[in-house]
Amino acid sequence: MSFERAQGATSRADQTTVRRANLGIVLQQIASGVPRSRARVAAETGLTRGTVSSLVGELLELDLLRETGEGDHSGRVGRPAQTLELGDRIVAVGLEVNVDYLAVCVEDLTGTIRYERHVHTDNRRSRPGPVLSRLARMAEEALEAADVDDLVPVGVAVALPGVVEEHSGTLLRAPNLAWSEIAVADEIAARLPGFTVRADNEANLAALAEHWQGAARGLDDVLCVFGEVGVGGGIFVDGELFRGAHGYGGELGHVTVEPDGPQCNCGARGCLETLVGLEAIARRAGLAAGSEGRTRNITRELVRRAEKGEDAVLASLAEAGRYLGIGLASAVNLFDVEAVVLGGCFGPLFPWISDDVRRMLDERVLSAGWSRCEVRASEFGDGAAVRGAAALTLRSVLAEPWRVAERSRPRQVRAS
Amino acid sequence: MSFERAQGATSRADQTTVRRANLGIVLQQIASGVPRSRARVAAETGLTRGTVSSLVGELLELDLLRETGEGDHSGRVGRPAQTLELGDRIVAVGLEVNVDYLAVCVEDLTGTIRYERHVHTDNRRSRPGPVLSRLARMAEEALEAADVDDLVPVGVAVALPGVVEEHSGTLLRAPNLAWSEIAVADEIAARLPGFTVRADNEANLAALAEHWQGAARGLDDVLCVFGEVGVGGGIFVDGELFRGAHGYGGELGHVTVEPDGPQCNCGARGCLETLVGLEAIARRAGLAAGSEGRTRNITRELVRRAEKGEDAVLASLAEAGRYLGIGLASAVNLFDVEAVVLGGCFGPLFPWISDDVRRMLDERVLSAGWSRCEVRASEFGDGAAVRGAAALTLRSVLAEPWRVAERSRPRQVRAS
Repeated sequence: MSFERAQGATSRADQTTVRRANLGIVLQQIASGVPRSRARVAAETGLTRGTVSSLVGELLELDLLRETGEGDHSGRVGRPAQTLELGDRIVAVGLEVNVDYLAVCVEDLTGTIRYERHVHTDNRRSRPGPVLSRLARMAEEALEAADVDDLVPVGVAVALPGVVEEHSGTLLRAPNLAWSEIAVADEIAARLPGFTVRADNEANLAALAEHWQGAARGLDDVLCVFGEVGVGGGIFVDGELFRGAHGYGGELGHVTVEPDGPQCNCGARGCLETLVGLEAIARRAGLAAGSEGRTRNITRELVRRAEKGEDAVLASLAEAGRYLGIGLASAVNLFDVEAVVLGGCFGPLFPWISDDVRRMLDERVLSAGWSRCEVRASEFGDGAAVRGAAALTLRSVLAEPWRVAERSRPRQVRAS
Repeated sequence: MSFERAQGATSRADQTTVRRANLGIVLQQIASGVPRSRARVAAETGLTRGTVSSLVGELLELDLLRETGEGDHSGRVGRPAQTLELGDRIVAVGLEVNVDYLAVCVEDLTGTIRYERHVHTDNRRSRPGPVLSRLARMAEEALEAADVDDLVPVGVAVALPGVVEEHSGTLLRAPNLAWSEIAVADEIAARLPGFTVRADNEANLAALAEHWQGAARGLDDVLCVFGEVGVGGGIFVDGELFRGAHGYGGELGHVTVEPDGPQCNCGARGCLETLVGLEAIARRAGLAAGSEGRTRNITRELVRRAEKGEDAVLASLAEAGRYLGIGLASAVNLFDVEAVVLGGCFGPLFPWISDDVRRMLDERVLSAGWSRCEVRASEFGDGAAVRGAAALTLRSVLAEPWRVAERSRPRQVRAS
């Protein structure tokens, strides 16, 4: 009987499963490169032209694809064939709570940012309720702007600077905010009726953005590290975001690099972020306290002074590079990645820290002699996490396009 | 056409694939618990009794199963039904080169050790050629003993204290032996004609043994650390041994725990193994130089003196526990495992180091407050790596039993 079982029967459930899988195959094929015709999609996927036409019809109706005349027709005479490319109406909303700012963006399927806003505010002095209300208002403004532009939002996700329980979207612990056990996804969802809201660790989401369309694109095994007030890590293993047994993995900022080092907000001593977090760098560099609490300002000021060659700043950055390299070397010894991507404030500061990072990896990674891990600057800097929050939804749409019908909220309902 | 494609055709290739998969399903079902009858196997796997009988027949012929009358017949009257259990004639040979010993074992499919030998010898003072010749002679003696016992060896694997290129079985670098670029698997295979020889990192193999039948059994996400002269790590992620992009991952011994700490043989400073390796513990404890070079002797001496309550020994072990905990906390922050298993010398020393390890994990793992990582002592101590080398072959046999016919060398040929 096992032989019959393996062949399976053509039930309606099977047909639905196959059609859903094929919708994803066609959409991902078109997402993977240049615009192309139905005929080319058929040739590339091995599906018949009839099947492709039917699938494309459904994807056009869902706004996941659009048809243009702008294909590759160089050298051709007459009207070019109609070509297919990703739709630009389906969008996702990305939100971010960080230690000293809130951010929102609206990103479309092609990875283009259609709306963004970044607001400085010291969330360490605020209770979660008012901060999340403010973030939800920013999301509403973004959704209104999307509505004006005739876009179709299909989901919302929030990037958070701490450990997040992925399935519930609960922030379990954010040492730098002194928040714990906050049901962030639920609280935002309560303020945005009709939307699915997810939440995840900011570094995981920033890594997702860099892996989808940034500096980590095309790499299966890569570690991304993001410097802000805290330091976060997002690790891809075999092309997938690595989460660990309970989703609490990748906490690079709390790898010990100096056992008796500075006190960390997490309670331990000498965590990586106590030595290479932005405020630690600024403090060592002797930056005025006035710029504290504004991540972007501190980074800009450090870059300005480093370009002028100020000794204290250069020394502080060299020390940050060394410690960052030590922490990364430990992680590379464990994960054996192809590359590390330096993001957040480490992006703009890359020219002054990357040599020390490189040197530490060469000295401290056991396999460095024959398998040299690359060091790259991030592409999206401190905008990666909020982009990644949008990408979390958009990547699900590309993988399972049939879910779009369930996710999108008709605009008529919102307008009423 | 896509619908037809999904159903597939019943070609001969498909039938072979299905039969091979079913051989594995039946064998693994029997391997997973108590002896059972053909009827019970059919009920549990959903295969027909006819199919099960045919598959069992093939597995009996390959010596992968054996039939006994010793099933569960409590309370029954008369002759019990014939039950099936794993065969005890199929065996694999495990070999190990370590810094100060060579080891060999013959293990059967049930995990029983049928032959073992452990020889003290300081391999740091030897060139690879003579060491591997000696190891191959030990393997030959083991194979002769297996022959006398009417066993069927199906493969050989070697555990090595360094970074190993898995597909070629080449030892790329073993800092504590000062060996590099040695084609160990090929060199052993040349001395054991007719056998497939593989090689892997000792900590990976030791972790395999603990995961298959030891302290890590049943855990999907677990980190095993093994102390000898060096310190190795073997990590299971989602039930599979984690290797990283090139197979060089899991190098826990070279995680930095004290950036300006003692010089390591790898060239870096303050690697975990410079502070918690067995010789570092012995040195701090003031052990006489006479016992150096003999891992088991040093461990026994440390246990003896710790039981007597010698201050220097207790202080050295406490420091080892603290540093081991710091290194493990970093790894747990990254990997988010359910448990850590302390093996090698850390097994016998567990009573004196586990509290400090526990304390460091509680202090330094960000998620410790709501997801406490367990600390366990290994089951196989410093015998885990050589067991794991045998297990590497035996687990492949259980997963793909149809390969056995290709692997086993007829004993008649060996005898000629």
